[in-house]
Formats: sequence, C-alpha cells, structure tokens
Amino acid sequence: MQSLQAKASEWSGVNQDDAFAIDDANLFQKLGLRTFISLSTNFYTRVYDDEEEWFRSIFARSKKEDAIQNQYEFFVQRMGGPPLYSQRKGHPALIARHRPFPVTHRAAERWLHHMQQALESTPDIDADSKLRMLNFFRHTAFFLVAGDELKCQNQPPSCKHGSSNQLPSKTS
Amino acid sequence: MQSLQAKASEWSGVNQDDAFAIDDANLFQKLGLRTFISLSTNFYTRVYDDEEEWFRSIFARSKKEDAIQNQYEFFVQRMGGPPLYSQRKGHPALIARHRPFPVTHRAAERWLHHMQQALESTPDIDADSKLRMLNFFRHTAFFLVAGDELKCQNQPPSCKHGSSNQLPSKTS
Repeated sequence: MQSLQAKASEWSGVNQDDAFAIDDANLFQKLGLRTFISLSTNFYTRVYDDEEEWFRSIFARSKKEDAIQNQYEFFVQRMGGPPLYSQRKGHPALIARHRPFPVTHRAAERWLHHMQQALESTPDIDADSKLRMLNFFRHTAFFLVAGDELKCQNQPPSCKHGSSNQLPSKTS
Repeated sequence: MQSLQAKASEWSGVNQDDAFAIDDANLFQKLGLRTFISLSTNFYTRVYDDEEEWFRSIFARSKKEDAIQNQYEFFVQRMGGPPLYSQRKGHPALIARHRPFPVTHRAAERWLHHMQQALESTPDIDADSKLRMLNFFRHTAFFLVAGDELKCQNQPPSCKHGSSNQLPSKTS
C-alpha cells in the first residue's frame, strides 16, 4: 500500500523535501504572529464568502473566528513559533481532525486557490517564505486527501463511490 | 461530542497543561539524541519480548528497528529537536498512523507500563524530564484510544462491540 506521504507527493506534485523546507527557515521568527493572524483572516474571509456553495458549505458548521484561530495557532506552532495549538487543543492529529470534512481532490484545489490569494494579499510575506508555505500547504492538502480515503477502509463499496473523492474527471 | 483532548484528559488523568509541559523545557537539548535512541530501544526491546502475547502481537507486522526509528524521530521532533520525523515521513498524523492497531484502554496501559520501565532503565534522564515525558506519554496514549474509537463511526454496532475498546472491566 502506498503511504500517505507518497500519495501526497504524487497528487500534489510537491516532494517531501520541498514540502518540509519550511523547517530550513524559522518562518515564525521571520514573519511574526501578526502576519500569521492576517493570513488566516484573509484566507477564511475568502472561504466564508466563496461564491462556490459546495466549498463554502464545508465550513458552515464552524464559526469563522474559531477556524481562524485553529489555523493560525497550528501554523505558528508548525513554523517555528510557540506551541499555541497544542497548549489549547493537544496534538494536531491533522487527518483525524479533518475527519468530519469531505477532503476531496477538488476541495484541496479550492482550498489552495484561496490560500494562494490570501498569501498574495497579506502584506510583508517575502517571496521565499511564500514559496515555502505554498509547497507545504499543497503537500499537506493532498496528504489530507490521502487521509480522507482511510475513512472508506472496511466500509461497503458505496462509501468510496459516494464520497466523490476521485481524481477529477479529465472531461471538463 | 466530547473532544479528543477532553477524552484523553479524562481517561489518562493528566490535564492538558501537564501533558504539554514538555514544551516548557527543551528536552532534546537537555537529553540529546543518544538518550532518545536508547529510550526507544529499551522500550521496544521490552515490547517485542513481552510475555503478554496479545500485546506483543500488535507489533508483529513491523520490524523492531523501524518501530524504534519512527518513535525516537517523533520524540526528538516533538521535544525540541530537529524535525527528523517529518523530513522522512511527513506529518506525524498520530491518530491516522495508529489506525492499523487496536489502541484499546488495555493496550494503552500496557504501552505505558513498558515505557515507564524503559524510562527507569535509560541512563541520564533526570527526574523532572521523566515526569514531563510520563505525563505527555500518558495523555497521548489515551488521545490515541479516543482516536481509535473514531474508526467505529458510521460502522455497524458490531464494530464497537468487537473492538474490545471498552473501559477495563471492574471485575478483576
């Protein structure tokens, strides 16, 4: 069986080394807390206003402020800052905590679309940091798609079929 | 629904602050790589020789050397050292990666029994570090028990029944 990380690399097109190049620079020290708060605020403002209802609805059961806080606390912790996320919520356990959401290939791409726009519109993020983060986010998004498929293990065949978690159709 | 971390605290008896007091001291700087390698080697030597077959068999499909490396690389990364685990395998995703194993209350207690012994028999671990690690391990073990129960969501009732993932019987 292909590992989660192998699937993430294949589907994202980002290899492991590039994905975790965030660890070769301390992005928290470079960018500071405010920038991370701005980034997540910009991101979720786009997400909660998304004109694509199928994507927006994924987040409908969470409060926007909570989504923002969960995200920037995780980013800060993972990118060299204080462990804000674990102090409040424990282990990130990324796949398990995304279990309630349908993390399909299509949803990953839409998430990344908004994150790319958020990175562009957040002041004071230099090009090098932006590239490291984009690679990390892209790999992680598809790591979560790989994790989403675990939900269908030991389930009837209808699970996978019904999850719409297939590679996007080539006929567009 | 009670969160993963709330279940972990309740079942382990270790609150969130004590569990993540590993972050108030850099244990990697204090103890060094060799101590972490020794700890995991001591731990898995006990586990793979466990006289209790039900527990030993949980690990039967993994090579001992791989188990040791996965564990100490994660510990090093999580306790203030270089991100060895992520460089090689990506996100820890603790719950998802424990999915193949039956992480029951009983298995958590057996794991902790061996880890306590391993901590005692590994030289150069001071009392303060030992306490921080034990609290972290105890909370984390029951976080994974809570995660294990997610596997039974949307499954027929026989899943939970069959998983034996119940609180230990009081009649001993």
